[in-house]
Amino acid sequence: MKGEMMFSTNSPPRAVSLSFGAGLWMFGQFVDRYATDAYGPPVGTLQAIARAGEVGLLSAVDINYPFEPGVTPAQVKSALQDAGLRAIAVTPAIYTRKFQRGSFTNPDSKLRGDAIDLCKRAIDVAQLLEADYVKFWPGQDGYDYPFQAEYTQLWDLAVAGVRSLAASHPQMGFAIEYKSKEPRTHITFSSAARTLLAIQDMGVDNVGIVMDLGHSLFAQETPAEELQLIARRGKLRSVEVNDNWRQWDDDLTVGAVHLIETLEFMLALRSIGWQRPILLDQFPFREDPVVAARHSIGMLKLLDAALDRIDLAQLHEVRTNQDALAAQRLVYQTILGDLR
Amino acid sequence: MKGEMMFSTNSPPRAVSLSFGAGLWMFGQFVDRYATDAYGPPVGTLQAIARAGEVGLLSAVDINYPFEPGVTPAQVKSALQDAGLRAIAVTPAIYTRKFQRGSFTNPDSKLRGDAIDLCKRAIDVAQLLEADYVKFWPGQDGYDYPFQAEYTQLWDLAVAGVRSLAASHPQMGFAIEYKSKEPRTHITFSSAARTLLAIQDMGVDNVGIVMDLGHSLFAQETPAEELQLIARRGKLRSVEVNDNWRQWDDDLTVGAVHLIETLEFMLALRSIGWQRPILLDQFPFREDPVVAARHSIGMLKLLDAALDRIDLAQLHEVRTNQDALAAQRLVYQTILGDLR
Amino acid sequence: MKGEMMFSTNSPPRAVSLSFGAGLWMFGQFVDRYATDAYGPPVGTLQAIARAGEVGLLSAVDINYPFEPGVTPAQVKSALQDAGLRAIAVTPAIYTRKFQRGSFTNPDSKLRGDAIDLCKRAIDVAQLLEADYVKFWPGQDGYDYPFQAEYTQLWDLAVAGVRSLAASHPQMGFAIEYKSKEPRTHITFSSAARTLLAIQDMGVDNVGIVMDLGHSLFAQETPAEELQLIARRGKLRSVEVNDNWRQWDDDLTVGAVHLIETLEFMLALRSIGWQRPILLDQFPFREDPVVAARHSIGMLKLLDAALDRIDLAQLHEVRTNQDALAAQRLVYQTILGDLR
Amino acid sequence: MKGEMMFSTNSPPRAVSLSFGAGLWMFGQFVDRYATDAYGPPVGTLQAIARAGEVGLLSAVDINYPFEPGVTPAQVKSALQDAGLRAIAVTPAIYTRKFQRGSFTNPDSKLRGDAIDLCKRAIDVAQLLEADYVKFWPGQDGYDYPFQAEYTQLWDLAVAGVRSLAASHPQMGFAIEYKSKEPRTHITFSSAARTLLAIQDMGVDNVGIVMDLGHSLFAQETPAEELQLIARRGKLRSVEVNDNWRQWDDDLTVGAVHLIETLEFMLALRSIGWQRPILLDQFPFREDPVVAARHSIGMLKLLDAALDRIDLAQLHEVRTNQDALAAQRLVYQTILGDLR
Repeated sequence: MKGEMMFSTNSPPRAVSLSFGAGLWMFGQFVDRYATDAYGPPVGTLQAIARAGEVGLLSAVDINYPFEPGVTPAQVKSALQDAGLRAIAVTPAIYTRKFQRGSFTNPDSKLRGDAIDLCKRAIDVAQLLEADYVKFWPGQDGYDYPFQAEYTQLWDLAVAGVRSLAASHPQMGFAIEYKSKEPRTHITFSSAARTLLAIQDMGVDNVGIVMDLGHSLFAQETPAEELQLIARRGKLRSVEVNDNWRQWDDDLTVGAVHLIETLEFMLALRSIGWQRPILLDQFPFREDPVVAARHSIGMLKLLDAALDRIDLAQLHEVRTNQDALAAQRLVYQTILGDLR
Repeated sequence: MKGEMMFSTNSPPRAVSLSFGAGLWMFGQFVDRYATDAYGPPVGTLQAIARAGEVGLLSAVDINYPFEPGVTPAQVKSALQDAGLRAIAVTPAIYTRKFQRGSFTNPDSKLRGDAIDLCKRAIDVAQLLEADYVKFWPGQDGYDYPFQAEYTQLWDLAVAGVRSLAASHPQMGFAIEYKSKEPRTHITFSSAARTLLAIQDMGVDNVGIVMDLGHSLFAQETPAEELQLIARRGKLRSVEVNDNWRQWDDDLTVGAVHLIETLEFMLALRSIGWQRPILLDQFPFREDPVVAARHSIGMLKLLDAALDRIDLAQLHEVRTNQDALAAQRLVYQTILGDLR
Repeated sequence: MKGEMMFSTNSPPRAVSLSFGAGLWMFGQFVDRYATDAYGPPVGTLQAIARAGEVGLLSAVDINYPFEPGVTPAQVKSALQDAGLRAIAVTPAIYTRKFQRGSFTNPDSKLRGDAIDLCKRAIDVAQLLEADYVKFWPGQDGYDYPFQAEYTQLWDLAVAGVRSLAASHPQMGFAIEYKSKEPRTHITFSSAARTLLAIQDMGVDNVGIVMDLGHSLFAQETPAEELQLIARRGKLRSVEVNDNWRQWDDDLTVGAVHLIETLEFMLALRSIGWQRPILLDQFPFREDPVVAARHSIGMLKLLDAALDRIDLAQLHEVRTNQDALAAQRLVYQTILGDLR
Repeated sequence: MKGEMMFSTNSPPRAVSLSFGAGLWMFGQFVDRYATDAYGPPVGTLQAIARAGEVGLLSAVDINYPFEPGVTPAQVKSALQDAGLRAIAVTPAIYTRKFQRGSFTNPDSKLRGDAIDLCKRAIDVAQLLEADYVKFWPGQDGYDYPFQAEYTQLWDLAVAGVRSLAASHPQMGFAIEYKSKEPRTHITFSSAARTLLAIQDMGVDNVGIVMDLGHSLFAQETPAEELQLIARRGKLRSVEVNDNWRQWDDDLTVGAVHLIETLEFMLALRSIGWQRPILLDQFPFREDPVVAARHSIGMLKLLDAALDRIDLAQLHEVRTNQDALAAQRLVYQTILGDLR
C-alpha cells in the first residue's frame, strides 16, 4: 500500500512497545432505540477530545466528520494538540439519516454522490489534520430483507464507490472497517475475506482494512487468524479492539468476555510486528468512558505482559504440532499458575 | 388470571376472525446509535395515533407512557376515538436514560422506587384509557458483563418489583414481555420458561406474558411450542408479531424471513383458540410504517387463509406420528402446489 | 428431593474440598458421522473403568447401561473397586438406534414401553452399584423439522415417562440432563427453566437436574445464573463440566474457551455450598482421554485456587452494586495481575 | 477453469431444465456419536447406487472413495449404468480415523502424504468413471481449541496440498467444498470468500468450489449472494442442496426450514445460467432416503415453478431500487396469494 508499509507475518514474535488510540465516539453521547433521550448529555467534538486527553494513555484518535456544527478543523487541531493527541484517522459519517438506505450502495445515485462528496470533505480534513487514513464504515450499505437487493449490484456499487475515492486521492490512505451487520441486518463488507476480495476488485493500492477485534468475533471469525490473513496480503491498515458476546457488536471493554481469544489476538499482533497504535472502539453506555478506556488499556498491558512470560518459541513448536493441550498448558499456566 | 380468562390449548383448531393491533411506537420516530439524527422527524403521541388509524386495519394499540410532553390522557383518549382505535395496553417507559442501569433491578433503591412510581402512573392512565393490561418491558433489567451482578439478586428484585405492582392493583391485568437481550447484553426475563418461573415466584394471579414472536425466534425458542407452554398455564395475556434473523430483534415485517415458523405460530394460535387482537411490533426504520403495517397484516391474513386450505385434522394425525415429510407435504403443497 | 438434601443458594461463599468424577463414556470409543471407522479402537466397559482409574484424580463415574455385551454388574462393581471408583450414576442408553425416533416421546407406544423397560433395568443396576441417581439423557426426544410434532404431546409424553419411573421407584433419585439439541435438532428438555417446569408437572419429589456446564453455554444460558436457579428450587442433583464454542456441544476440556464463565460457574458452585463430585463430560476425539481428564481437573483446581485469592466479600459488594468494571478489576487482576 | 466453462452472472434470468444428482452417502448408513450402533444397517457402495437409482429422478452421483472393500471401479461403473446414473464426482474419504488430525494440514508429513496418495487414487478412479471433478472435503483440516495451531501454517498446508494435486493433474477438474465446522470446531476452508482467496493462492486454474447451500446457511452467509460471488469469478464447479437451522449442518430436506432463502438461491442459479445437475446432500437419519430424495426434488421443482410465475423483470427492478416490501409482494403473493 501507498504511504506506509504494511507489516508481514514473517517477523518473529517479539515484544514491541504498545501505544494506544481510540475512536473519538467513545467519549461522545450514546443513544439507542430505547433510551431515545440518550445515555448521557450531548458531548461536542472538542469536549470529546478533551475527555480523550483525560485518559492520559492515548496518543491518537479516529475522529468522526462532520464535527459538531460550528467547529472548524483548526479548532480540532488545536484541541488535539492541547490534549496531547493526534488524528490517526478521519471517519466520515456516511451512516446517518440521510444515508439510511446506503452510502456507496444507495439506490439513489444522487445520494451516492452526496456520500462521495462527504467523503471528499473528510479527506480534505484528514489532510489538514495529517491523519494517516480516512476510514470508511459503510454500515448502511447492505440489506435487511430476503430478495431486497441484487447482491451483485451492491457489490459493484460498494467497490466502485471506494475505488473512485481512492483513485482520485492517490496520496491518501484509506481503510474499510468491515462488520457483518448493524444497523443493516446484512452489511456488504461483512468479513475479512470478502473485504479482501472487494479490495482486489478495486484495483487500487491505497485501500486497506481496519480490523476491529469485536467485529471479527461477531462475524464468527477467529480474530488472530483473520488478522494474519489480512496482514500477509499487505492490507492491514489499522486495528481496533473491544469485546462482545459474539451475537452483537456490544463494544464492551477489552478482554472482558473473550480473554483467551484476545490474548491470542495480541500474540498475532506481535507475530506481524505491529508497532502502530491499537485503537479502542467501545460504547460504554453505562460506564464512565475515561475509566472504561483506562480499564481496557490496563487489560491490554496485562495481556501483553502475560505474553512476555510465555515461552513463545515453545508455544510456536507445540502449535506447529497442533497439540491443543500442550498449548493450553503453556498459555493457561502463565495466567493461572502451573497446570500440572 | 384475574379479569379475562386465559385460553386453554385443548380447544380444537378452528378458524377465528382475526383482529389486529399495534405497538404505537412503530408509528413514532426511530433512532439508533448510528443514525443519531434519527431515521425520520419527531412524531408525537397524537400524531402516531393518527398514523395508526391511517392503517385502516387496526383496532387496538399498545401506548408508551409518558406521552409526548403536554399531551393529556384525555387528548389521547379522544385521538384514539377519532382514529377508531382503543388502548389495549399501556407500556411505561422504564428503559430510558434514567433507568439505564435498570428499573425493577436497578442497584439504586431510589431509582427502583422511581420505576415503580412511573408504573403506577401508567396504571392510572391505563385505567383511564380502559386498557386491558399494563405491559412491563424491563429491557434495562439485566447485565452486560460476566461477574457484573449477583444473579439471584437480579431475579429477586425483578420478581419483587412486578409483584408489588400486581399485588397493590389486583383489578388491573399485567404482562411481562420477555426478551433475551437488547439493550442489555443479558435481560433477566429472557425466555418464556424463565418468565413463567418468575411469575410463579410472584405468587399473584394477575400477571401474564406478552409473547412476542420475534423475541421468541431471537431467544432460539420454537415460538409455536412456547406459545402453547404459556397458554396451557393460563398465562398468555397478549401476542405481538414481527420477524428477524434470529440473531437480533430486527423487528421486520411479519413472515418476511420465517414464513414457515410464522405459519406454525398462526396454527398454534388457532389451537389455543386465540380470539384477541394480534399486535404488530415492528421498527420499519427504512420503510413507511403505515405501508409496513398493512403489509404485515396482509401476510397474516394470507397465512391464515393458507391454514384454511390445509387439512388440519390430517396434519394433526401426521404430527402425532411425528412424520416430518408427511407434515411438510400437507403444509408446503398448500403453499407451493402439490409436492408429489 | 428424596434421599439427599439439595443445597440452597444462601450459604456464604466458601472454599470446599473439590472432588471429581467423570462420565465413563469419555474413556470409550468415539465415532461421528465422518470418521465412521471411529477415532480409535473399541473400548469395553471394564477397560473404560480401568482407564478412568488411571486418571488418579477421580472418585466417581457415571456409567452407561447396557454394558458391553457379556459384562455383569458384579464385574463392573469389582472393576470399580479395583480402580478406586464408585458409581455415582447409571445412564440408560435411550438414544441408540432403537430409540432414534424417541424414547419417552417415541410416537410408537411399544418403543416408549421398551425405553421404560430399559430404564427399569438401569435402575436395578443402579441399586446394585449403589449409585446416587439414574440419569436420563433423552437426546432423541424432540423433533427435527417444523410441523413435525405436536409440541404439547411431546411435553406430555416426556413428563409422563419420567414421572412413571420416578413414581414407581420412590427410593431412587433421578436426574434429567437437559440439552438444546443434538442428535435431534430440537430436544424437548432443552433448558434449565423448561426442565424445571417439566419437573413441576411431574409432581414427584425424586427428580432433579444434572446441569452440564457445556449444555448451558450451548443453550445460550449464563451457567452460573441457571445453576443458582436450579439449586434454589432444590433440584440440582449433579454437575457436569466441559467447554465448547456455544454453537455445538463440542465437549472440550474445561475452561479452554470460556475461562471467565467457568470461573464464575465455580464461584456459583461455592455460593450454593456444592460438596459433591464435579463430573467431567468430555469427548476427547483427538486427545488421550486420561491426559484430557487430568488436564481438566488441573484447570478446575487452578480456577478454584484463583477464587481463593479473590476478595469474595468485596466482589459480592461490587456485584450487588452491579459495577462491571470494579468486578472485573477484582477478578481479572487475580488472574492477570494488577489492572491499575 | 479447465475443461468446462464456468457460468457468468450476466446472463438474464431464465428457466432452464433442471436436472438432479446426489451425494451417494445419503443412501448409505448413518452413525453419530450417540447412535453408535447406527441409524440403520450397513449399506455397501453398490447397494447405495441401486438405492440412488430407485429414486428415479437422479442422473448423477458424487461417490465416496474408497469403495466398500472388495468392490472394483468396474463394478461401480456397471452398477451406475444399471441404475441409470453417472459419476459426476469422486470424493476421497480424507476425513476418517487415519486423518482425524487432518489431511492436507495434518501436522505429520507422513499422513499428509497418505492423504495426497488417497486423493491420487481417487483421481484415477474419477478418470475411469469419467467423473467431472474430484471433490475435496477436508473437514478434519482445521483446529478445535484456541492456540492449538499456527493459522498461517494451516492455510499454507491446505493451499499446498490442493495445489500439488491440481498441478500434477492438469486435465482433471477439482473442487473444494467449504464448511465452517464439523467435525473440527473450525475448518480452514470455512467460507466462500476464504476459499476463493485460497484458490487464488494456489495459482492453478483447475480448482473450483462446490457450493453447499446448507454449508452457506450454516456459515451465516446469504447463499444467493455467495453463489454469485463465486460464479462471477468463474469458480463455481458444482452445487449441493439441503437445509438446516443455521446452527449446525443438519442436512435436512431442501427448503424445509429456509423456504424463502432456498427460493432466492434457485433464482440466483437461474441468474448465472446454471444448467448442470443440482446435487442433494442430505443425511436422512430417521427418514427413508429414497423418499427424502424424491421429497427434496419435488420441493426444488415447486420452487422452480414458483419462479416461473413471478414477474422476474419487475422483481429485478424493485431489487435494483432495494424496495424490500415491493419485492416481498412480488415473491410472497406468488407463493401465498395476493398480498394486497
